[in-house]
Amino acid sequence: MQHMNEIRVFSPATVSNVACGFDILGFPLESVGDEMVVRKTIKKGIVITKIEGFDLPFEVNKNVASVSALALIDSVKPDFGFEIEIYKNIKPGSGIGSSGASATSSVYAINELLGRPFNKLELTNFAMKGEFIASNSEHADNIAPALFGGFTLVKNLHPLEILQLPTPKDLYVIIIHPQIEIKTSESRDILPKMVSLSDTTKQLSELGGLIHALHTSDYELMKKSLNDHLVEKHRSKLIPYFDELKSKSLAAGAIGCSISGSGPSVFALAKGKDMAINIESIFKSVYSKSNIDFATYVSKISPNGVVTI
Amino acid sequence: MQHMNEIRVFSPATVSNVACGFDILGFPLESVGDEMVVRKTIKKGIVITKIEGFDLPFEVNKNVASVSALALIDSVKPDFGFEIEIYKNIKPGSGIGSSGASATSSVYAINELLGRPFNKLELTNFAMKGEFIASNSEHADNIAPALFGGFTLVKNLHPLEILQLPTPKDLYVIIIHPQIEIKTSESRDILPKMVSLSDTTKQLSELGGLIHALHTSDYELMKKSLNDHLVEKHRSKLIPYFDELKSKSLAAGAIGCSISGSGPSVFALAKGKDMAINIESIFKSVYSKSNIDFATYVSKISPNGVVTI
Repeated sequence: MQHMNEIRVFSPATVSNVACGFDILGFPLESVGDEMVVRKTIKKGIVITKIEGFDLPFEVNKNVASVSALALIDSVKPDFGFEIEIYKNIKPGSGIGSSGASATSSVYAINELLGRPFNKLELTNFAMKGEFIASNSEHADNIAPALFGGFTLVKNLHPLEILQLPTPKDLYVIIIHPQIEIKTSESRDILPKMVSLSDTTKQLSELGGLIHALHTSDYELMKKSLNDHLVEKHRSKLIPYFDELKSKSLAAGAIGCSISGSGPSVFALAKGKDMAINIESIFKSVYSKSNIDFATYVSKISPNGVVTI
Repeated sequence: MQHMNEIRVFSPATVSNVACGFDILGFPLESVGDEMVVRKTIKKGIVITKIEGFDLPFEVNKNVASVSALALIDSVKPDFGFEIEIYKNIKPGSGIGSSGASATSSVYAINELLGRPFNKLELTNFAMKGEFIASNSEHADNIAPALFGGFTLVKNLHPLEILQLPTPKDLYVIIIHPQIEIKTSESRDILPKMVSLSDTTKQLSELGGLIHALHTSDYELMKKSLNDHLVEKHRSKLIPYFDELKSKSLAAGAIGCSISGSGPSVFALAKGKDMAINIESIFKSVYSKSNIDFATYVSKISPNGVVTI
């Protein structure tokens, strides 16, 4: 461990909000995510030596991965540095935690190379510094699931408290990413500052139902609870065919369907791989008739987050 | 069972809202509640023959207990009737589920005398008819815990869905009931129709935290989660010394302290009987210096609800 000079990690895409858990709930995908190689260097500091996949800044104070890495080494001050190679698979702005994966992978990798001086909660704090420059808002609902794995709930930001919820086996997620651009800021601006107390009460009962369902592996209750009374009705206006994706996937047996993060990706949950593949084909057929490019993903919900590979 | 002609039941007082579960969460007390005797009569219909404790209407279409009983027998149409003796211990308007206990006891008792044709969910529906005339609003967050026992969450009203949450042993509730009158309608009118999205997000994280804490018997997390960002700040204005009750009980080790139902009763939760008695004495000392009459109660949280005695 102490003598490791190089590490390669996989950092998962994540679905946040998850219908009823606006800004606090999320889970990671098992088979969709970025890779990163981090190497110790004699020279102190952080250097990004390679970025593949998407066009992202090499300037260390502008790239999410290096900003979070700098936050970490700033509190350790090692007498050496790190160079980072970023292999980006998650398109920035897709709504499935692209910046969260970048922010997570670098702090996880460097912590491993340093012999794990920090726990996951501390790593979440560092990663939030990177996430902040991507979205200009402080949130952990992509980073926490990417670091902790499974369903996670951000109980509190200051001080940071993360709850690891049970993650039923057999739970698959299906994602469709329409290749349209919605900025996180735009997606935030469309939200009302005020919501009705009655919608709030409904949302509380949904979240309560979902958490109870996760603890009891009650898929029926999960299905009844994956509803959003706060943000979906506003943000879905920005996503073509959202209503059709949702109604058709639910009619086919999906456990739930809503917007992933701030969109434009839409996710559905399904029990078992066969149903998941079925839902994916429904998602594809809805968008095939449009002239919008799209990508789809099917993955188990990962009980683990970022891992060394 | 079929030949039982008379039954005596205990119907518990209940705490609803429970800080973070506005309108959906509640639990019953083990040792505080009403008693009721119900007897079969040759004459059809419902008659109230005795009301002790508090001054409540004998007219069957005005008394909560008989209204809920009428809803039940209306769907069975037995060729006999029932007379009801009400021994009221829970003061109406106290905020600890007085009308809920009345509405619950009669339907539970009659269902027993009829050989249990209805399940608890159906009984909840009948009891809600009685509860409605007391508060002029449809809610089940006192009735459901009184019928099901333990922490209950009203997931949905139409169709009615009740979730039974785990109830950690060692959990005691302390209640102070200041003898001031706050009408439920008044206590509702003081609430804003709209709340901020950020307060809603905070409340969601608290409720999520509490439900996870109940499933994991995590008292620390329970303490961190029993916060109300929606209603307490408004309703507490109607309750003298609320801030002092809360700050002193929490400082002494209470797990949480908030308004019971729509008030004026204030509840605290504590782990273990010794701590509960300690908190009760704090509650008493706060109100002893006032000229407001008050009553206090200490009870375990009951894993059962209404029972035959």
